[in-house]
Amino acid sequence: MVTRLYIPWKMLFKDLWFSILLIVIYLLFLSILDDEHLLSQLSLPLSIITVPGTAISLLLAFRTNSSYQRWWEARMVWGAIVNDSRSWVRQLVTYLPKDPVAKELLIEMSLRQSAWCYALARHLRKQDPTADAGPLLKKDEISMLRKSKNVPNALLYSQAHLLKHMFKMGYIDSYQMVQLDTTLCKLTDAMGKCERIKNTVFPSMYTLLLEILIYCFIFSVPYGLVETNGAVLLITSVTLALAFLIIERIATYLQDPFENSSSDTPMLTLSRTIEINIKEEIKYKDLPQPWKPERPYVLM
Amino acid sequence: MVTRLYIPWKMLFKDLWFSILLIVIYLLFLSILDDEHLLSQLSLPLSIITVPGTAISLLLAFRTNSSYQRWWEARMVWGAIVNDSRSWVRQLVTYLPKDPVAKELLIEMSLRQSAWCYALARHLRKQDPTADAGPLLKKDEISMLRKSKNVPNALLYSQAHLLKHMFKMGYIDSYQMVQLDTTLCKLTDAMGKCERIKNTVFPSMYTLLLEILIYCFIFSVPYGLVETNGAVLLITSVTLALAFLIIERIATYLQDPFENSSSDTPMLTLSRTIEINIKEEIKYKDLPQPWKPERPYVLM
Amino acid sequence: MVTRLYIPWKMLFKDLWFSILLIVIYLLFLSILDDEHLLSQLSLPLSIITVPGTAISLLLAFRTNSSYQRWWEARMVWGAIVNDSRSWVRQLVTYLPKDPVAKELLIEMSLRQSAWCYALARHLRKQDPTADAGPLLKKDEISMLRKSKNVPNALLYSQAHLLKHMFKMGYIDSYQMVQLDTTLCKLTDAMGKCERIKNTVFPSMYTLLLEILIYCFIFSVPYGLVETNGAVLLITSVTLALAFLIIERIATYLQDPFENSSSDTPMLTLSRTIEINIKEEIKYKDLPQPWKPERPYVLM
Amino acid sequence: MVTRLYIPWKMLFKDLWFSILLIVIYLLFLSILDDEHLLSQLSLPLSIITVPGTAISLLLAFRTNSSYQRWWEARMVWGAIVNDSRSWVRQLVTYLPKDPVAKELLIEMSLRQSAWCYALARHLRKQDPTADAGPLLKKDEISMLRKSKNVPNALLYSQAHLLKHMFKMGYIDSYQMVQLDTTLCKLTDAMGKCERIKNTVFPSMYTLLLEILIYCFIFSVPYGLVETNGAVLLITSVTLALAFLIIERIATYLQDPFENSSSDTPMLTLSRTIEINIKEEIKYKDLPQPWKPERPYVLM
Amino acid sequence: MVTRLYIPWKMLFKDLWFSILLIVIYLLFLSILDDEHLLSQLSLPLSIITVPGTAISLLLAFRTNSSYQRWWEARMVWGAIVNDSRSWVRQLVTYLPKDPVAKELLIEMSLRQSAWCYALARHLRKQDPTADAGPLLKKDEISMLRKSKNVPNALLYSQAHLLKHMFKMGYIDSYQMVQLDTTLCKLTDAMGKCERIKNTVFPSMYTLLLEILIYCFIFSVPYGLVETNGAVLLITSVTLALAFLIIERIATYLQDPFENSSSDTPMLTLSRTIEINIKEEIKYKDLPQPWKPERPYVLM
Repeated sequence: MVTRLYIPWKMLFKDLWFSILLIVIYLLFLSILDDEHLLSQLSLPLSIITVPGTAISLLLAFRTNSSYQRWWEARMVWGAIVNDSRSWVRQLVTYLPKDPVAKELLIEMSLRQSAWCYALARHLRKQDPTADAGPLLKKDEISMLRKSKNVPNALLYSQAHLLKHMFKMGYIDSYQMVQLDTTLCKLTDAMGKCERIKNTVFPSMYTLLLEILIYCFIFSVPYGLVETNGAVLLITSVTLALAFLIIERIATYLQDPFENSSSDTPMLTLSRTIEINIKEEIKYKDLPQPWKPERPYVLM
Repeated sequence: MVTRLYIPWKMLFKDLWFSILLIVIYLLFLSILDDEHLLSQLSLPLSIITVPGTAISLLLAFRTNSSYQRWWEARMVWGAIVNDSRSWVRQLVTYLPKDPVAKELLIEMSLRQSAWCYALARHLRKQDPTADAGPLLKKDEISMLRKSKNVPNALLYSQAHLLKHMFKMGYIDSYQMVQLDTTLCKLTDAMGKCERIKNTVFPSMYTLLLEILIYCFIFSVPYGLVETNGAVLLITSVTLALAFLIIERIATYLQDPFENSSSDTPMLTLSRTIEINIKEEIKYKDLPQPWKPERPYVLM
Repeated sequence: MVTRLYIPWKMLFKDLWFSILLIVIYLLFLSILDDEHLLSQLSLPLSIITVPGTAISLLLAFRTNSSYQRWWEARMVWGAIVNDSRSWVRQLVTYLPKDPVAKELLIEMSLRQSAWCYALARHLRKQDPTADAGPLLKKDEISMLRKSKNVPNALLYSQAHLLKHMFKMGYIDSYQMVQLDTTLCKLTDAMGKCERIKNTVFPSMYTLLLEILIYCFIFSVPYGLVETNGAVLLITSVTLALAFLIIERIATYLQDPFENSSSDTPMLTLSRTIEINIKEEIKYKDLPQPWKPERPYVLM
Repeated sequence: MVTRLYIPWKMLFKDLWFSILLIVIYLLFLSILDDEHLLSQLSLPLSIITVPGTAISLLLAFRTNSSYQRWWEARMVWGAIVNDSRSWVRQLVTYLPKDPVAKELLIEMSLRQSAWCYALARHLRKQDPTADAGPLLKKDEISMLRKSKNVPNALLYSQAHLLKHMFKMGYIDSYQMVQLDTTLCKLTDAMGKCERIKNTVFPSMYTLLLEILIYCFIFSVPYGLVETNGAVLLITSVTLALAFLIIERIATYLQDPFENSSSDTPMLTLSRTIEINIKEEIKYKDLPQPWKPERPYVLM
Repeated sequence: MVTRLYIPWKMLFKDLWFSILLIVIYLLFLSILDDEHLLSQLSLPLSIITVPGTAISLLLAFRTNSSYQRWWEARMVWGAIVNDSRSWVRQLVTYLPKDPVAKELLIEMSLRQSAWCYALARHLRKQDPTADAGPLLKKDEISMLRKSKNVPNALLYSQAHLLKHMFKMGYIDSYQMVQLDTTLCKLTDAMGKCERIKNTVFPSMYTLLLEILIYCFIFSVPYGLVETNGAVLLITSVTLALAFLIIERIATYLQDPFENSSSDTPMLTLSRTIEINIKEEIKYKDLPQPWKPERPYVLM
């Protein structure tokens, strides 16, 4: 489903070329000073430089770990959405009697569940949440939804209203209604978790602090390598800088999994999978194709 | 919703200027001794200094991680409050029959849920918990609440009493009452978790020990750099001190997420979001505006 | 609720003075050898000493983290006890009809819940579990309880018997009984978790091994600092030893949160808070005062 | 059940021989340069090399930990499948009346549960999901299943349809149906979790970045060891490279626990254990043998 | 309950004497070479040796942490078994009417629960699962159980059959049966978790790799200490080796908590505690004594 080896070199390059340029210019400037023998007075023992090196490494480890946790939690929430969507349809199929009206209700509620997945995906990416609703919902429902401030939430409320109607008509008993409501609660929870991850930025001070520390570290390395050959110094410094900055950058990509970037949770692909599963179950003809890769390159 | 790049430099500066001053004075004092050639007898090999450097880095990593966990848990609890508030209203809408009295009960219980969120937020910040209740609760209820020692808890009990009333009047059956009670239990849990985070201070020994260790480390660095140029020594020491102290400081900001400081969980903003969601669902006219940023600067 | 800055210096000093004395004597002994120029043959390169330094730091990080997790889990369990106690009373209030007998049952079961919290706290600290039961339980129940081997468990069974009675009398229906039983199950779980933390000691080999490693490390430091000034060597060694030993010691304090020491979970304070909350809800007159700080000093 | 000591040396050798060859050639090339005394100008202080060494070690620790978590989660999900399969059959036995038709339903649903385990295992490994269904399902059901895109999901839907039938026939009441449905939900969740682990690749950038960093590190080591004996340099570099690369490689093996490789979760063995447990319970004659080891060698 | 300070020195010595001997012989052999001045050509800078030192330390930290998690999870599962056993009996007491037949059923089901705990403990240690069942089960049930492949599972099925009988006889209603079944599900889960921990070995490659790395490290240390005194070298190397190997060894002890070794979960002690609790509740005369310490020495 996901290409493994395609790496967004361009994206990384776009983010990092300025930093690298800065470091190179700084080093060239130093090498001029060095020719004037001004630098040897400023030499630093290397051991003292390794202390911030360790601190930076540990902060990077913390940062990497936290970002990975956020990314993985996002993936788990969408995994739960897949499961609960399947359970929702399976429960409807089990509980509803064989009856033309009930059959129609089943189809309507199943398709709306599918529409909810798309709407949540688009909502999180700040796109039009009704973009994929065309073949799944009725036209007047879509135009109603367009007025709502939180379309996925409105869809869940529609499901709840139908549930009430089904109970009133005697299609399900009190106990079954509550069980279906429990599944709706799980979907509400999943939606809330997505919004929490989306709206809670990772403490930006750590990002800033880490970058400042990395620059301080890189800028002080030359004073510890005063007696080293210039070219070696250049390569060493740039390599170290690149290593630290790239690790920091990947963590930044991972920490926001709903930002419509290349490291996103593949929400539309998953929504399409759910749609196919649901339609197959309710014997809907005319199954859609799996979603084509969501963007030209993917981070992972 | 949350500004990303605004960093509380002032706050940091206010917290750290004294430490930095202390270190600078100490270093100047040492440089005078150095002129008298008293320092060279006290020189230390740098390698031995890197050992506490590693220990400090690991303790900082532990500290950062624990504080981040607390901050993130606080955010998760409020995410759960958002979800459960929505579920509460959705369940009421689903279970209650269409009936003017039931409609009134629905509105009262929905608005009280919104008031509960504000009350909890204010309660945790040790402010007046009824400050935002004006448009949501009746006047006599508010004056009653003012006498209570734990306003959010009292509001949950009011909800429970109404639930009992609804059951007695036959609006909901035994099973639905228990299901609604389960949602109340979740809200009780969320409230208890907030109080736990609020009342359980992070073991302060670690904070103190870390600061002492950082000072010991910084104060011993110069003996390892006896032969280094004075200005370089000054810059190196102050930079290292700043790096360690700022990391420690940010962890301190994060560890108490309900202290009405700039790194707080945005509880009022979330309460307002809940209010808008709830009012939209029960077709309440006159939706409020989203909360304006809670304070002039935000940490993250 | 909890004093922040008061640190048990006395306790730490009592635990560590012997270790420090040992190290000082050892160093003085070495300095005599040094005068005889016997030590220089035994000199060690410092780099090899930093390897166990890193290993010790990592083990300390593991130890600190595990102990903190235990301490935090203990706090979470007691947070859950607060929540479930509130839910228990709220559920009773909601389910029981208005009726003098039911009212009496409500008061009896609410006060017994409060007594259970005190009993659990005392039981975990190996004190008399009925010490605080005087104003909460009847005299003959207390004398019965004194014979039991596990008082908190016996109290939960009493609640279960009353539940059965209430069901038989028709005060609650089958469904409500089961819901109340679910809350009893949660309280049983919380009790069992406390007992697990109490009875499962942290693998003591790690404590012993860490202390041995720290002493080995400290005792080998001087051989790496042969050419250093004696006073500097003394200060460096003692400071390093103190840093490592204090971190290890705090972890030991945290790892056993029910041992009636200064870093305990404030169980009696929490029990009193629960008592006040419960009594306020059932309109009991004569609310007790919040618990005075449990001991002269508190660790965190 | 699982052989402990058999290590896939061949597999490791196949993966790593090229890397080792590359490093050896590079070192031989350097030693030629060294004879021409070109290398000494490029010498680097070793301390600066230890900084990326620490960073690599920490990244490896992160990588190892994350992969282990994935592998362990996969194992936990299959542990849950074992539990829920047993509970499913136990619940059917408890709920269904003694009755020839009910007995037949019990056998059919129990065997289908066993078939579901095999189907899920095969589905995750991209093999024919009906390969083991022969003795467990009827022929026409198998041929129906072959058309489905997601066989395990289709099997769960079949169970749900039978549940509906049992309810309609009055074999189980509404409450028992919902309880059985809850177990189906747990099985749906387990299936979804397996698919999530299968379909979410570990961010491949970390793998690539780590390998690049390891090569950079290994290729720069010789410049720090210019004055060392050639053979010692060769052995040191190759050993370091091997250590880092093997750790990285094992993490890669562990991270994908459903890829039909030697570090897989032993899904077929577990499915067979479930089959034996189920058949023993329903007094089915002719129990199958435990599964023979799934492949010639196993990683753990 | 558990002795704290008794450490299995013998066990450790038995495991490690060969390694230590190997290292000492190797070092003596090197010292002979050294006399011939062959070693100085092979000298290595110490800094390069600290890199694998850091990597080993981090791997040991990962290993220690994972093993501790496994050990702690095993302890948590048995804690849950204690809780659920108590809840099981409490629920039976609450639900069953006062009636001689019901009383008999209560005693039978309570004692069988106690027997289940012993059976699970013995089953996990590969001992005779019916060893302690004598006073708890009827003779013919025991002889039946001896034929079963999974005795604890068979006992749970017996409980389920009795549950069915109780329901058919009208002692409990549908809702109460399902609630009791939920507790049985929890016990099934606990059993499955124990089996998972028992049957899933920790990836043995890490153990092997760590040992190889430790030996490589220890065997390369002398080349970095060429100019050091021989005795110092010997002590340093052996101490480092011991430290690393002991940490690795303790992790190995902890990782398999059901292997009938000294670091086991004290399952028989816990089973006896459960038995006493259960018998006290059902007013059974003749309570057994707490279990005597399970073996001569305990690891923690």
